Amino acid sequence: MVKIATMRDVAVRAGVSVTTVSRVLNGTGYVKTGTRRAVEAAIADLGYLPSGSARGLVTRRTGMLGLCLPDTGPVADLRAPVRVGHRVEVVPDHDSAGTVSWGGLYFGEVVRGAEYAAWQAGFAITVAVARPPESDARIRELAGRVDGLIVVAGTQSDGLLDHLAHRVPVVLVAGPRPAGGFDHVGVDNARGVQALVDHLHRAHGIRDIRYVAGRPDTPDDTERFAGFRAALRRAGLPVPEVPALRGDFCRPTARRLARELIAAHRAGDRALPGALVCANDETALGFLDVFTAEGYDVPGDIALTGFDGVDAGRTCSPRLTTVEQPMADLGRLAVDVLRACLADPRLPRQERVAPVRVLLRDSCGPH
Amino acid sequence: MVKIATMRDVAVRAGVSVTTVSRVLNGTGYVKTGTRRAVEAAIADLGYLPSGSARGLVTRRTGMLGLCLPDTGPVADLRAPVRVGHRVEVVPDHDSAGTVSWGGLYFGEVVRGAEYAAWQAGFAITVAVARPPESDARIRELAGRVDGLIVVAGTQSDGLLDHLAHRVPVVLVAGPRPAGGFDHVGVDNARGVQALVDHLHRAHGIRDIRYVAGRPDTPDDTERFAGFRAALRRAGLPVPEVPALRGDFCRPTARRLARELIAAHRAGDRALPGALVCANDETALGFLDVFTAEGYDVPGDIALTGFDGVDAGRTCSPRLTTVEQPMADLGRLAVDVLRACLADPRLPRQERVAPVRVLLRDSCGPH
Repeated sequence: MVKIATMRDVAVRAGVSVTTVSRVLNGTGYVKTGTRRAVEAAIADLGYLPSGSARGLVTRRTGMLGLCLPDTGPVADLRAPVRVGHRVEVVPDHDSAGTVSWGGLYFGEVVRGAEYAAWQAGFAITVAVARPPESDARIRELAGRVDGLIVVAGTQSDGLLDHLAHRVPVVLVAGPRPAGGFDHVGVDNARGVQALVDHLHRAHGIRDIRYVAGRPDTPDDTERFAGFRAALRRAGLPVPEVPALRGDFCRPTARRLARELIAAHRAGDRALPGALVCANDETALGFLDVFTAEGYDVPGDIALTGFDGVDAGRTCSPRLTTVEQPMADLGRLAVDVLRACLADPRLPRQERVAPVRVLLRDSCGPH
Repeated sequence: MVKIATMRDVAVRAGVSVTTVSRVLNGTGYVKTGTRRAVEAAIADLGYLPSGSARGLVTRRTGMLGLCLPDTGPVADLRAPVRVGHRVEVVPDHDSAGTVSWGGLYFGEVVRGAEYAAWQAGFAITVAVARPPESDARIRELAGRVDGLIVVAGTQSDGLLDHLAHRVPVVLVAGPRPAGGFDHVGVDNARGVQALVDHLHRAHGIRDIRYVAGRPDTPDDTERFAGFRAALRRAGLPVPEVPALRGDFCRPTARRLARELIAAHRAGDRALPGALVCANDETALGFLDVFTAEGYDVPGDIALTGFDGVDAGRTCSPRLTTVEQPMADLGRLAVDVLRACLADPRLPRQERVAPVRVLLRDSCGPH
């Protein structure tokens, strides 16, 4: 077993005090450049590694920010046993289907943006997905290991959030502005959908526009449907009380809804709507999969739009008109908010809104 | 400022010893179910949060695993100032281009798989991207805060890795089997490309097959080119010493290479190859962007294949034939290897290979 160098070993080798070494490690207090170099050289020579735990107790800082993500995307592949070996299968893959992987969705980009901003500020990002069972216990555990928490809205109970906020600064990401005293970073879901529906009506003259909802009682979905209704109201079109169709943000369910819509259409008892405004890109891509497979022309027979701006929407055919969320910016803003809290705990509650963009592509009609 | 409950407060409230509370928190030793319930109730009532730092010193475990990723993908967007506000831009997006986001690539899935396996084992995953400046210092710092490190091969110097391995178990992911004494989890890049090139030659009768390399001196690229050469050798075709074209794994460079190829072709001084075997999907998608825009028929005029299995390759047109890496499985296997090391530090060096699959889609020819 190799002897592990201590801070004292470093101090002795560099010919300085332990305090000086600690200053260099923590970037606190003034240290002459020459001295800093000597300490850094000693650290390298001895292979010294600072103990995060020890420093955590000294500085009351862990240098970590927690990022708590919802349990989205398929996990069936993760539950399956891991395959091991050199064998190479060669298989035809006819299924243009498949749900876009977790990594490619909304949250992969939030992680990317948060990690980058955290890195600039000298923090590392710890990622935890809130899953049953023991989700609460695990998030509490995480809160005990970080200087601040970024929590995606709607993934935790208000009770737990209050609890966590007693210990570390908590910033909520996405969803509506929270009622409680929490800092919040979000996008304007309603205005985004409203601008998109305005475009469908004004630029393409589409009047029969229907909303395909996501999982019920999710804040994002509620706001998007509100924006949908506001646009119809403003256009003087009939305003529905409830969404025409109800999905769950995932592609398989969207495909089922599409097949049902087509069946009803072919049975002749219902005309296709002029446009489907989907709660997210995955839902729109599910409809696109089925409409294309069934020989319908998008946007000729029916226009489709999404929300998020995932990569698959840029490369599918026709390319998907969508409301692009500044996903990475949400992560960056959340880290900025936490840094401000850590710098001044008495800071008044912070609210930041990252603007969305409507990206006009081919699935909503010719430009 | 709210008073923070201590472990002693919890013990008093639950009417048990601090040792018992600690057992419940750390899941060590035997605790009666009723007692455990009482402690958990007290924890909830008091809003007690265990201190990761304090427990770290006691258990010598942090409950964290570090995942060190390379600095891939574009960061221009992350360097730009963050936009804030409610304004909604409505903009035509004609560029089917754009590089697939970091989240959607290889590493988003590795994070997903690692986080899931870590969660099952009671660990949290801390993500750090190795970037200049001070990349080494930051990785050393991370190593001081975790129980084990997952490092993507080729992102750190051997010197640093030796250094880190003195402190925590280190497992390398991807790339070739490391020379040093490191645990390793990888895929068989060579066999994957070899099986793909065999298919192009045998099933589609393509003889003029060229390799489009990635960034030079990257282990994955070297192995893939070796597999490419092995297949040509076995097929009795001429075996090139160096790749026909040299990209950098990114789409913009691939597009430039595609435009040059087309220019040379139209100038009449070179025929198009029968197939381009690209070092990764992003490279193949860059070629596809340009060929499609220039009115070439893929695979009619030229076949294209990738490597990785990113989402964009499933939704582009034509859909991209590729070698699919079990990205999430790499993350899961890496966590399994670390768990084994932590359970038994004297364990002999571990090597795991996750099998790849050749996914036959439309870009290599009709099936």
